[in-house]
Amino acid sequence: MKIAVLGTGFAGRTLADGLAGLGHEVAIGTRDVAATLKRTEPDRMGNAGYGVWAEGHPHIQLARFADAAAGADLLVNATSGAGSISALTDAGAANLAGRVLLDVANPLDFSQGFPPNLFVKDSDSLAEQIQRAFPDARVVKALNTMVGDVMTVPKSVSDGDHTVFVSGDDAEAKHVVTDLLSSFGWTDIIDLGGIGTARATEMMVKIRLLVMTSLGTPISNFKIAR
Amino acid sequence: MKIAVLGTGFAGRTLADGLAGLGHEVAIGTRDVAATLKRTEPDRMGNAGYGVWAEGHPHIQLARFADAAAGADLLVNATSGAGSISALTDAGAANLAGRVLLDVANPLDFSQGFPPNLFVKDSDSLAEQIQRAFPDARVVKALNTMVGDVMTVPKSVSDGDHTVFVSGDDAEAKHVVTDLLSSFGWTDIIDLGGIGTARATEMMVKIRLLVMTSLGTPISNFKIAR
Repeated sequence: MKIAVLGTGFAGRTLADGLAGLGHEVAIGTRDVAATLKRTEPDRMGNAGYGVWAEGHPHIQLARFADAAAGADLLVNATSGAGSISALTDAGAANLAGRVLLDVANPLDFSQGFPPNLFVKDSDSLAEQIQRAFPDARVVKALNTMVGDVMTVPKSVSDGDHTVFVSGDDAEAKHVVTDLLSSFGWTDIIDLGGIGTARATEMMVKIRLLVMTSLGTPISNFKIAR
Repeated sequence: MKIAVLGTGFAGRTLADGLAGLGHEVAIGTRDVAATLKRTEPDRMGNAGYGVWAEGHPHIQLARFADAAAGADLLVNATSGAGSISALTDAGAANLAGRVLLDVANPLDFSQGFPPNLFVKDSDSLAEQIQRAFPDARVVKALNTMVGDVMTVPKSVSDGDHTVFVSGDDAEAKHVVTDLLSSFGWTDIIDLGGIGTARATEMMVKIRLLVMTSLGTPISNFKIAR
């Protein structure tokens, strides 16, 4: 597939790299290509600046949101939650129409510092906001309950014995995403229901950050034991 | 230990039964003993009315909140979240002072029907509300991320290979609760930090209810795979 990954942060890069590794044609979308490539300093999490990362990943094209999105079979929203609607607007509603939009972002609110709160909770979700803003996109929420490394290499935790959740109103779009997840090696994929169920997985941000702190590593994930 | 379990619902009964099975002296607290014993119809979840349940559990005393709480070494809040402060007020601040108070309740808001929302979320928690209302109690949040059966018999899911979270400001009180959890057979107990971290586990209600629906059984639990 031709895939556009919107967002140049750690999740976006890791997904782009993983998807390219599966043989997909991947472009990363950003607001300003030149400014993104100029970033060479590591971020506060210690991740390399995009310009440095890009040198090691010459097969992954960087393009303006709209250019990356044009003609993509599937799009991934890996922008910051607060910037998602704006980025998708730049990508262009016409480029989203009828396409599967995998939303891996969380509605993080850093206005009170770290750890973040959520700007929507049990009465709405970022995924629903995106679906309402782009009614012709086929939004599927998934992979937002773990760190980037685990998204694309589930075997990096507990030999892959853990869970990924999927929410969305379009059954066929969920099928496309589920196939993609399986190709990464996911075996326990729980379909929670419609896009409104994304509220539940977005609300897991708090526990994930605390577990990360308690364990001293982000390399973990939720498993539904049964 | 002498233990008071406040709340006559499924969680309270199951905990009382489990604690009595470990050899503790257990009383269940309620607002009105006669009214509680008069309930013989099953609730909407199909659980027996308290009066019927009580006949099969004659070793577990039913008493008014204050009578159950008086002289207890440890108290368990298994009341509905919306009724917790009121029930604990009835139990008596003096009876809570210096005592370990294990809070297993969730801040469920049924005002919009089922599934419930939460009446506090990422900016506060029921556990913190209780700690603020009863500053001399030693509040520990735990077991609020699973159904009653799993609380006391962790081996009923995946041979016990899953996780329970603990939050609280009082290290010694957390130690008491952790010992109690171990005596139920819990092996993966993650200490998340202070009582404020209860926000994270209370926010897991939504995902738990959805997973229950997806799997068709409440007998499951979260495991932190790593």
